[in-house]
Amino acid sequence: MLPMTQSVNRPRVVVIGAGFAGINAAKALAKAPVDITVIDRKNHHTFQPLLYQVALAVLSPAEIASPIRTVLRHAANTEVILGQITGFDLEKRTVRLGDVRLDGFDLPYDYLIVAAGATHAYFGHPEWEELAPGLKTLEDATEIRRRILTAFETAERQGIAHRAALPLNFVVIGAGPTGVELAGAISDIAKEYLTREFRAIDPRQSRIVLLEGGPRVLPAYPADLSASAERQLKQMGVEVRTNAMVTNIEPGIVSVGGERIPAAVILWGAGVSASPLGKMLGVPTDKAGRVIVDPDLTVPGHPEVFVAGDLASVHRNNGQPVPGVAPAAIQMGKFTARQIKNILAGKPREKFEYLDKGSLATIGRSHAIAEFPGNIHISGYFAWLSWLFIHLLFLVGFRNRFLVMIEWAWSYITYNHSARLITDTAEEEEMEKPKQKAG
Amino acid sequence: MLPMTQSVNRPRVVVIGAGFAGINAAKALAKAPVDITVIDRKNHHTFQPLLYQVALAVLSPAEIASPIRTVLRHAANTEVILGQITGFDLEKRTVRLGDVRLDGFDLPYDYLIVAAGATHAYFGHPEWEELAPGLKTLEDATEIRRRILTAFETAERQGIAHRAALPLNFVVIGAGPTGVELAGAISDIAKEYLTREFRAIDPRQSRIVLLEGGPRVLPAYPADLSASAERQLKQMGVEVRTNAMVTNIEPGIVSVGGERIPAAVILWGAGVSASPLGKMLGVPTDKAGRVIVDPDLTVPGHPEVFVAGDLASVHRNNGQPVPGVAPAAIQMGKFTARQIKNILAGKPREKFEYLDKGSLATIGRSHAIAEFPGNIHISGYFAWLSWLFIHLLFLVGFRNRFLVMIEWAWSYITYNHSARLITDTAEEEEMEKPKQKAG
Repeated sequence: MLPMTQSVNRPRVVVIGAGFAGINAAKALAKAPVDITVIDRKNHHTFQPLLYQVALAVLSPAEIASPIRTVLRHAANTEVILGQITGFDLEKRTVRLGDVRLDGFDLPYDYLIVAAGATHAYFGHPEWEELAPGLKTLEDATEIRRRILTAFETAERQGIAHRAALPLNFVVIGAGPTGVELAGAISDIAKEYLTREFRAIDPRQSRIVLLEGGPRVLPAYPADLSASAERQLKQMGVEVRTNAMVTNIEPGIVSVGGERIPAAVILWGAGVSASPLGKMLGVPTDKAGRVIVDPDLTVPGHPEVFVAGDLASVHRNNGQPVPGVAPAAIQMGKFTARQIKNILAGKPREKFEYLDKGSLATIGRSHAIAEFPGNIHISGYFAWLSWLFIHLLFLVGFRNRFLVMIEWAWSYITYNHSARLITDTAEEEEMEKPKQKAG
Repeated sequence: MLPMTQSVNRPRVVVIGAGFAGINAAKALAKAPVDITVIDRKNHHTFQPLLYQVALAVLSPAEIASPIRTVLRHAANTEVILGQITGFDLEKRTVRLGDVRLDGFDLPYDYLIVAAGATHAYFGHPEWEELAPGLKTLEDATEIRRRILTAFETAERQGIAHRAALPLNFVVIGAGPTGVELAGAISDIAKEYLTREFRAIDPRQSRIVLLEGGPRVLPAYPADLSASAERQLKQMGVEVRTNAMVTNIEPGIVSVGGERIPAAVILWGAGVSASPLGKMLGVPTDKAGRVIVDPDLTVPGHPEVFVAGDLASVHRNNGQPVPGVAPAAIQMGKFTARQIKNILAGKPREKFEYLDKGSLATIGRSHAIAEFPGNIHISGYFAWLSWLFIHLLFLVGFRNRFLVMIEWAWSYITYNHSARLITDTAEEEEMEKPKQKAG
């Protein structure tokens, strides 16, 4: 009954997390003389760069996510476990899955790759999370979609009841790539896609406020591209406010110092911190909770334990930190797999070097900025086309690439967002709350 | 600011429910000299005949549902409200939306079309609903999908932990069209689609039990087609048990008399009852809660109040009840719209007559039965092709038709279900429960 494709004699590699780093490590080891166990809390690998498109109802969850089992089904040496890690024993070389009193258990490893990624950081205000969700998972994306669509529905209902339209304010906190994407995409949806569908409200009158604590949007990009992004955002009707530090969030209100900004929906793009699994390893971490690794991405004193992706604190030759972006995670995943193959083949270990192929940030329909090596900076429509092309190219699975392409083309031509579903019952509770409250 | 496309002088038609009856009534009135308000608890119209495909992870929610606003956006005389009806005043001619102390309000009508549909019936055991979900909404479908996929994941995790595979039992209660679809589709997913993806369990060993209280499956169909459906189900590895009345459901166990059948997942296809809005009207209803209407589908004594779709208790000329199927709901919706136009034009009212164009029940990949007028009965592959063709044809919106066609073709050829996502956090709680419990 048990199709035992794994051998007890081969070294076991346990991979924790099936994000870009973990899935690429596992794929690169598919033909190596090892047995692999991939563990994730979700059953799917998510193409995170397109999450905001789910949040804004352009794409459906299934178009940017694939079951981990499906991605790895041809790797006969790989098994996948849907489960939660509750502990590590680096001395005994085991990871603990779930609660052993129930159906949890300890899983031994010879090599461990911890690629558990990052989560939202609320800077000491965990109570803000419920009021201002961030965007890291499919659940986050559908929750944001639900809040935005419900805000329009509530405004329309009140407009019909009182024959007077209320202002619809959207506040996005943090002008990093996620905040800029969300603000731009809300502008798209409100000012272009929804215009014909409401009777009592005019979605074009929505106010979209992007708050940034620092002096400019997209601070990781060169100043000229930041300035271009800010111009493009303003052109799209987004109110950009820099040096605006949020001091409080309560239902329906964001405070910046003494100013209270009313908000039907509040979204968080202000910061991430490393997965708590980093601290659970019991090794030194930096102040964002990332594990400080050796140049070969191993934990000091444990050459068999690798950390890859957003959970690793790594620096480039120029002293700059390796950014928490998909290409870096992919490179680290592949690098880690290669080190394990090197060890098994008796070859020396290497030093991880991040190859920067450029970076792009999208702002909305036909708006983006891009920075390529050789100091090439582009903005606007052509940057957006590059973004589109590159993201389609890297989507996992041909089927998704093909369907997403059709979906985008359809949506671009017809201004029709068909994934605009509110799919839970929270809208009913919503009705019981007073006007203009977030949630 | 208010694009007032509606006039205060034209009669107002309020349509409650945007299922097949409501949406067809609204569409048929789009050019009539009336103003229309469509009210639904959901923001989307769902193509219910394909819900089980979402439950079994073949299709994504967005492929079988469209926002109601999008479907009706070209009807300038129509407004849409996402809201919950909490009362009727047939004398004052108003419907009450939500709680008026908060943002609820009373909406006046000149003509009312109540098309609120049906919900699950648990025959006096409301506590079974949580243990054995039925299939009426997108939320039901994604919940069923989550339970089925999580059952396989839990079995695999336990298989890896203990290197021993546990039996995977699926029990479907009720062999009407929904129960038969679900049982057949679980067989497809377990015995064909998932086979290559697990290492510790063999999904083909899953046991699928279909329990029917009556003497045969699909009792609304002629006996020869019932027999054929039962043969097809058995061929697909489904254990069909007729005259098996369920006496109790507890977590992980279905009891039929003294026999206790263990079940990783329990699904309900045994019965529906009318929406509680029927009783809320304060007019006579039948024992299933359907409103007893006059031949023109109006409520006795209220010629301005129509009831259409599954909520209406209507009989055919031969004394048989009109079945609760999509074509009947569509015909009633259109009929109701025509009556309102007749009244406005001073023409006499008509008597509703159901035109039976045949009925189809699908059992799984390449399996179905079909009955067409003229006593034409077909079974198997050609019945399934007819089912496929007819359902594609009636899917709302060209985009959905096109995408679903591609999705089906892809899935049929590659055996790859890409909508197989578990998208909520319940799988974590799942881990804390003992083995083989439903939930």
